[in-house]
Amino acid sequence: MSVAVPAGFTAAGVAAGIKSGEALDLALIVADQGTIGTAVFTVNRAAAAPVRLSRKHLAATPAVRAVVLNSGGANAATGVAGDDTARAMAEAVAARVECDVSQVLVCSTGTIGSPLPYDEVMAGIDSAADELAGGELASHAAAQAIMTTDSRPKQATYLSPAGWSVGAIAKGAGMIRPDMATMLAVLTTDAAVELPALSAALGAGVDRSFHELNIDGCSSTNDTVILLASAASEVIPEPDEFSTAITQVCRDLAQQLADDAEGASRVVVIHVTGTESDAAARDLGRAVADSVLVRSAFYGGDPNWGRIVGALGAAASNDSVNRADVDFAGVPVARDGVAVECDQAALAEQLATGNFVVDISLGAGPGEAHVLTTDLTPEYVRFNGERS
Amino acid sequence: MSVAVPAGFTAAGVAAGIKSGEALDLALIVADQGTIGTAVFTVNRAAAAPVRLSRKHLAATPAVRAVVLNSGGANAATGVAGDDTARAMAEAVAARVECDVSQVLVCSTGTIGSPLPYDEVMAGIDSAADELAGGELASHAAAQAIMTTDSRPKQATYLSPAGWSVGAIAKGAGMIRPDMATMLAVLTTDAAVELPALSAALGAGVDRSFHELNIDGCSSTNDTVILLASAASEVIPEPDEFSTAITQVCRDLAQQLADDAEGASRVVVIHVTGTESDAAARDLGRAVADSVLVRSAFYGGDPNWGRIVGALGAAASNDSVNRADVDFAGVPVARDGVAVECDQAALAEQLATGNFVVDISLGAGPGEAHVLTTDLTPEYVRFNGERS
Repeated sequence: MSVAVPAGFTAAGVAAGIKSGEALDLALIVADQGTIGTAVFTVNRAAAAPVRLSRKHLAATPAVRAVVLNSGGANAATGVAGDDTARAMAEAVAARVECDVSQVLVCSTGTIGSPLPYDEVMAGIDSAADELAGGELASHAAAQAIMTTDSRPKQATYLSPAGWSVGAIAKGAGMIRPDMATMLAVLTTDAAVELPALSAALGAGVDRSFHELNIDGCSSTNDTVILLASAASEVIPEPDEFSTAITQVCRDLAQQLADDAEGASRVVVIHVTGTESDAAARDLGRAVADSVLVRSAFYGGDPNWGRIVGALGAAASNDSVNRADVDFAGVPVARDGVAVECDQAALAEQLATGNFVVDISLGAGPGEAHVLTTDLTPEYVRFNGERS
Repeated sequence: MSVAVPAGFTAAGVAAGIKSGEALDLALIVADQGTIGTAVFTVNRAAAAPVRLSRKHLAATPAVRAVVLNSGGANAATGVAGDDTARAMAEAVAARVECDVSQVLVCSTGTIGSPLPYDEVMAGIDSAADELAGGELASHAAAQAIMTTDSRPKQATYLSPAGWSVGAIAKGAGMIRPDMATMLAVLTTDAAVELPALSAALGAGVDRSFHELNIDGCSSTNDTVILLASAASEVIPEPDEFSTAITQVCRDLAQQLADDAEGASRVVVIHVTGTESDAAARDLGRAVADSVLVRSAFYGGDPNWGRIVGALGAAASNDSVNRADVDFAGVPVARDGVAVECDQAALAEQLATGNFVVDISLGAGPGEAHVLTTDLTPEYVRFNGERS
């Protein structure tokens, strides 16, 4: 159940030959007339050609009719030829959908620096347009077609009792970090929502999900999250429910990304509280998740809070880190900046079982954040050390 | 040849029992009256007790008479008790050297969050004071006593034809990053240098050496570089020669730190040119060296310049990254932001042989930096995942 389930959307996923073999590698999502769209893009200065094109198209019109996505190549660092390919992809889709080229968004993911195979991509767009369908099978094929090193497709759904729904697909397994992660996501809804509310809901949802993921500290060249609303249910949703639903779908996808992170053996939630603001809490949580020493200790199941203090101190803007309370898996290991007695062996045994939460309290302020990360493993290094 | 070779200095390294077994773990360096000192300290907000004490002492007087250093424990995140221990160490040394307590600097290194064993440290200071001597053996013992996960002691020397010298010891194998690295270094000289010139020479030297090291992205709680000048040679050095000598000694030590980095299989120099300033070049070089994806590719000997562009783009403040020229080991892999043909197999073979340089040119600006880093290896993760 996902992106082609809400009324007003069809999807397809095909094997265009961008990747070798029979792997699905090109997805197309088409929306009924009257659909509006909003998106959050990477802030990486080396943004890929499709990101730059989609930004321009969305600035020209919110009346999005289609999103074309490929895996097998990021079309980043590909120069003028890369821009030409991205534009040709949009034009080919526009011709089939019979809309203006500016109504088509383009997303690519894969290795940076290699050109996309033009003929294969164009033929793939034609095949995908032939296969467009609504429902679960089409959604699943689209989710599969955007996978890179993902081990499984990522999908999420929200069904409102009020008669509208949200569906979504996402990909991402490495280079996962806020602003944004190397991840693509497309959310669709048949709720009737105006553009300002749509953008606000997506912004809030991304903020509390993908922006709280920090897996290997690299914000990528291609990250894009798109939300399309067809209004095909003809239901105007209760605003809080809609916003909550979008956040919930985003968080569901973010959790799936963390669970499937390359080479990771566990997901760790860095829960920071007591700062002056949520933003400060998130910055500190990200700094902890950026530390390869901390993440190596997570791999070993070592409740090494000293490394956490070191990472916090390197990023902190005040001295509250010296009075930190730190708990691993609910067990206090430091209070007021100093070690406290705990049953290290029992704690280590608990950490060895899998995922856990690290709570870091830095005072009495209202700020709070949950940052999702994973351990750093020998497998990760081996995996990413292989020649692509 | 190192820290106790310049006239006016004695040193010792003893096994105080801070570490288990017979390992040397406490070093003492004592300077003649009339010596002046300057230092660069970590900017980590969770600075260890000895760092905070030494900062205070050096602010009170530049007339440093001794530096006491221990391995086996960082005395960081140890609360009020940690402050008391650091102060007691300075007092014990002052009593033996017969100087004011503010003339003693203290450095600690090791695990964060565990208290130092007070009695062992105090007894060790007495033993070290008994064994103080000039010359090579004493220098070597001091260099050994500050090792943590270092596989070998680090020393460097400069002998001026004009009759003065510089000697130095250092430690550091993990948590190595600018501002500063988890590293300690003490430089001594018998040149007759005034305090402003001494501080300027150390600042410039550190800037072009330790601040260009970025091995695992974590600026530590304890990093300290101290330079002491005894004037015992009675030679006023030629200013350029002196400044160059200090930089040379710092760079020699930094190279030794990189060569001995935990679990690394190769040293990689990120050479950034063409930016508007040296600082901008260093920031971008550090961003590349911060990327676990880039460093994993270094491990695999993969000339994956796309990941470098991704890392640069995430840190860049302008779009010049999209026109980057990138060379691996002198072989062009990208020009004007786009891949160029190269013999990938031959290049990979060359990268597999060991250390190499990555040249990144971002335009015609005068900025330039060399950032030293290492590959990220499965061994690093395994090593740092072990429970300490």
